[in-house]
Amino acid sequence: MSLDPDLEAWLRLSLIDGLGPQSLRKLLLACGTPQDILGAGARDLGAVVPGNIVSAIRNGGAQDSALTAVTRWLADSANHVITFADSAYPQKLLEIADPPPVLYVKGRLDLLNQPGFAIVGSRNATAQGMGNAEAFAGTLSNAGLTVVSGLALGIDAAAHRGGLSGPASTLAVVGTGLDVVYPARNRDLAHRIAAQGTLISEFALGTPAVASNFPRRNRLICGLSRGVLVVEAAVSSGSLITARLAADQGREVFAIPGSIHSPLSKGCHALIKQGAKLVESAQDVLEELGGSFESPTKTPGTNDRAEEHPLLAHIGFDPVAADVLQQRSGLDAASVNSALTALELAGQIESLPGGRWQRIR
Amino acid sequence: MSLDPDLEAWLRLSLIDGLGPQSLRKLLLACGTPQDILGAGARDLGAVVPGNIVSAIRNGGAQDSALTAVTRWLADSANHVITFADSAYPQKLLEIADPPPVLYVKGRLDLLNQPGFAIVGSRNATAQGMGNAEAFAGTLSNAGLTVVSGLALGIDAAAHRGGLSGPASTLAVVGTGLDVVYPARNRDLAHRIAAQGTLISEFALGTPAVASNFPRRNRLICGLSRGVLVVEAAVSSGSLITARLAADQGREVFAIPGSIHSPLSKGCHALIKQGAKLVESAQDVLEELGGSFESPTKTPGTNDRAEEHPLLAHIGFDPVAADVLQQRSGLDAASVNSALTALELAGQIESLPGGRWQRIR
Repeated sequence: MSLDPDLEAWLRLSLIDGLGPQSLRKLLLACGTPQDILGAGARDLGAVVPGNIVSAIRNGGAQDSALTAVTRWLADSANHVITFADSAYPQKLLEIADPPPVLYVKGRLDLLNQPGFAIVGSRNATAQGMGNAEAFAGTLSNAGLTVVSGLALGIDAAAHRGGLSGPASTLAVVGTGLDVVYPARNRDLAHRIAAQGTLISEFALGTPAVASNFPRRNRLICGLSRGVLVVEAAVSSGSLITARLAADQGREVFAIPGSIHSPLSKGCHALIKQGAKLVESAQDVLEELGGSFESPTKTPGTNDRAEEHPLLAHIGFDPVAADVLQQRSGLDAASVNSALTALELAGQIESLPGGRWQRIR
Repeated sequence: MSLDPDLEAWLRLSLIDGLGPQSLRKLLLACGTPQDILGAGARDLGAVVPGNIVSAIRNGGAQDSALTAVTRWLADSANHVITFADSAYPQKLLEIADPPPVLYVKGRLDLLNQPGFAIVGSRNATAQGMGNAEAFAGTLSNAGLTVVSGLALGIDAAAHRGGLSGPASTLAVVGTGLDVVYPARNRDLAHRIAAQGTLISEFALGTPAVASNFPRRNRLICGLSRGVLVVEAAVSSGSLITARLAADQGREVFAIPGSIHSPLSKGCHALIKQGAKLVESAQDVLEELGGSFESPTKTPGTNDRAEEHPLLAHIGFDPVAADVLQQRSGLDAASVNSALTALELAGQIESLPGGRWQRIR
């Protein structure tokens, strides 16, 4: 089995050591597709990235050996690599400052664009706190919100369990490669999520647990979500960092109060003092979010007929030229052009300089 | 022992059945002093109050027998009747919509114009709730805030106990006559407050515990205070009514959070959702109130020398003529006039139409 050439180009770039999401996005803007980047001249590349990255790209990016693991991993039909170019890419992530161009996904792809809601909190949670997390998550999943969390012990694990009990299930964003289960005590839970929900990571396969990767992971947890609930958290904890990231991303922050004598309520109380919504029940969350968690592809102004046009499946969030769309779709030039016009009028795509097109939502 | 004629006039009016604070204030505005009201014609009175009240006033107001109990009660030097005309009248109460013209006071008069802070909550409080109330009250009393509450069981009693432990002590606003101790289980506490703090009531001596009087009492609890802290409260409880009154009066509302599974935290959580400040410590309260709880007579612009002029002691919050001040103070007309000018320039009093004067603060 070999990789699709487009996907291979995305991976060869994203697996270059030292080439982060921001630089890769700049290269896409400057050069076009990943294949365009791999074919670009040193001068064009050098205007965007430093010399060692230019050399790596000019040498074809990550070497064959680095792709072998991905190819083998993708042999399991539960596993996927999703890029900016895919319509399955989570649209909510495009709202954040630093969306990862490549995501590794295990499990259901459909959850990536379901309305999500993050539940996070302490690894050393109380039994009551974990009970609250699981109960809130269950109610929210039953109400159609996919419960997003970080697969950590304590509150995260309880939130995933609750999410799995409802139809909207759960989405675990992990801070390691998807072939590394961390923490090991959550192995069974990770297997259940892979079967009934979704695990995602922006980190390459084999990436071990590294402290500095967890804050990056946290920005995706809130980026994928309509809001973030902090269930129990000490002051100066990772959960408060996630809540701050969420507020920076324009996500609503919620917190569950508790005794003023409980150290694990102090983080929640600090958030409420700073403006987070105090919630006593999942119903409070649902009322606050209102009807806004219907499927994001059903926003007002959407033309359902245009949305269903098969060409849309070939247009991602990176710019693509009409002739590439002809190749991808097998349609003739006239059909592609009329579909592009219809999709643009429906607000699904926009035209860019140079005859390129990209998805808006 | 007989009553001072001014005080007797206040009492004869305030003890008329059916003549409430609002009507009495209207009569004062229309006629002048209580003695002026008692001497007014039926037409002038009839323009303000209904016929039965006009008749009662024209008959000299409350009869001698009604004053006997007050005279006997005032024989105890701890007991006082304070009216709008007294400089000891709590200035904070003049900010509310319906200040009582006459207050019965037992204990320290000086606390009436100290910065106050109300702590209220459930009669059926938890041990933790009462511990919190007492601890917060102790810290606030030590920081110079007189703890105001309603002498009910539970949170109120705990707040008073905490207030008594600090120098700013405590002020109990009761919903009965001051010669009626209700509830009886707080008898010892009431005696301690009479000795080291202050009990006040707007209700005539002998007034029993009547349900409808407690909401009226609550408006004074918050009226006397810079802010109100609700420690534990069920939803639809009297404490929430007090909090709403406080907000209507422009007082800051504070609440202590607790478990989402505790019925006695639900009232506090409801308040926080509506905008009350969540507090975890008395320090939170002090920080929120800032330096604003220094003595209210030390507001900026106050001229301390003028403030100390002995004439000020004879000027209350009802209008008074210069010749009355001559009689009260024993000063000659020239001294009174120069003192009035100095006090007006210092912003302590203002001149009113008809050559009358009254205190501003």
